[in-house]
Amino acid sequence: MTQLPAHPHFVTLEGGEGAGKTTVLQALRASLQDDGREVVCTREPGGTPLAERIRGLLLDPAHEPPAPETELLLMFAARAQHVRETILPALERGAWVLSDRFTDSSYAYQGGGRGLDAAFIAELERRVVGLQPGLTLLLDLGVGTGRERTRGREQEDPGNRPDRIEREHDDFFERVRAAFLARAAAEPGRIRVIDAARPAVAVAEEARALLQAWKAAQ
Amino acid sequence: MTQLPAHPHFVTLEGGEGAGKTTVLQALRASLQDDGREVVCTREPGGTPLAERIRGLLLDPAHEPPAPETELLLMFAARAQHVRETILPALERGAWVLSDRFTDSSYAYQGGGRGLDAAFIAELERRVVGLQPGLTLLLDLGVGTGRERTRGREQEDPGNRPDRIEREHDDFFERVRAAFLARAAAEPGRIRVIDAARPAVAVAEEARALLQAWKAAQ
Ligand SMILES: Nc1ncnc2c1ncn2[C@@H]1O[C@H](COP(=O)(O)OP(=O)(O)OP(=O)(O)O)[C@@H](O)[C@H]1O
Ligand SMILES: Nc1ncnc2c1ncn2[C@@H]1O[C@H](COP(=O)(O)OP(=O)(O)OP(=O)(O)O)[C@@H](O)[C@H]1O
Ligand SMILES: [Mg+2]
Ligand SMILES: [Mg+2]
Repeated sequence: MTQLPAHPHFVTLEGGEGAGKTTVLQALRASLQDDGREVVCTREPGGTPLAERIRGLLLDPAHEPPAPETELLLMFAARAQHVRETILPALERGAWVLSDRFTDSSYAYQGGGRGLDAAFIAELERRVVGLQPGLTLLLDLGVGTGRERTRGREQEDPGNRPDRIEREHDDFFERVRAAFLARAAAEPGRIRVIDAARPAVAVAEEARALLQAWKAAQ
Repeated sequence: MTQLPAHPHFVTLEGGEGAGKTTVLQALRASLQDDGREVVCTREPGGTPLAERIRGLLLDPAHEPPAPETELLLMFAARAQHVRETILPALERGAWVLSDRFTDSSYAYQGGGRGLDAAFIAELERRVVGLQPGLTLLLDLGVGTGRERTRGREQEDPGNRPDRIEREHDDFFERVRAAFLARAAAEPGRIRVIDAARPAVAVAEEARALLQAWKAAQ
């Protein structure tokens, strides 16, 4: 397996659709801010003006769908930019960086979901990313429950329509979930699995406790 | 070196800025059409609706410039799409495909120009492109002459402003030219070098003759 340098102040949230990543990120941001360090919250695909435009191409159902290989390279193009323009500069000035998704999502979606070769994903990671988060919180949730939650979000805000990837079928998302869990099993030191089926307060509480333990161990 | 399958009806035009690729392509299209086969003329980056949108991100000087790695992956993302959506379907139905730039341009611009590792480019070519042109015509021209020609084009049509890559310095384009010539020296069977400093009629005549010889040899 690739062993890339991990940065202790770089923390990522991972998980399937509607698992609660964005909700937990808000909770962690608040609890991190109390120690005086700068906190940079960011997301993938995206995190720079160009990377957000690549995100637009990836999720827009208007033009022809990208082939799996195109999707993979667009994800890593956005990530290459995100690392160089946003993540590394923030870490270098001493900030915490919290990212809503990162490379693990490519192994799960383009690897597990689309069936692309994990060795190629690892080669891209080594060549163009070159760093890992110190801590990754994986919000694990059944596919059906995640779907109900995003449907709820769509009913509250009808502008929040499913994007191209969210329109995939359940068996796609089952493969994504299995790939996330397999990565967590292979890297138990970095990736901590949180049962995201519990109420939001309990999930946020566990995420905060894991992050506090991580901070204390540095 | 990667030895990928070459398709006899797939022909590419390569060369630096203003070398005359687009001009020669028009001449070749006309001379190919006389044998009754369908002729598909296309270009890179681009060649499908999504790939043309990726081209827009690559050449637009509006947002922050892509890092070299981002540029490389965007080029190959567009190419992955172009091969699957446009080139392979055309070849499969028996058409000629003439492309204004293809993978050789990535070796020249992102490899020679930006200094990225050719072994990584070869890995991308093997993983996401998987085919080579049967014949490549390399229009070789001094950097200064190419620049004068594109400046002439800009004066005729002031909307035709230099894009992000065209704004690079001469030493960048010297490295691009050297990388193209090195590839031609390494693959003399596939890549034929044409002296593009001569008048357009002479250049087009040589390109047509090389293509006729190629057709006759199939
Ligand atoms: N533990 C929870 N229990 C019930 N509902 C939750 C829980 N956590 C989040 N939600 C709600 O579920 C929806 C999805 O949550 P959120 O947007 O945080 O998920 P996400 O993982 O970021 O989703 P996406 O993958 O679409 O970005 C939201 O409406 C949110 O309020
Ligand atoms: N052999 C030639 N001699 C003089 N001028 C030429 C010749 N070939 C093309 N031109 C002119 O030079 C300009 C550049 O040619 P063209 O657009 O075909 O080059 P290109 O290689 O496609 O450039 P780009 O890399 O910008 O796409 C055009 O204005 C064209 O009319
Ligand atoms: Mg979210
Ligand atoms: Mg041209």
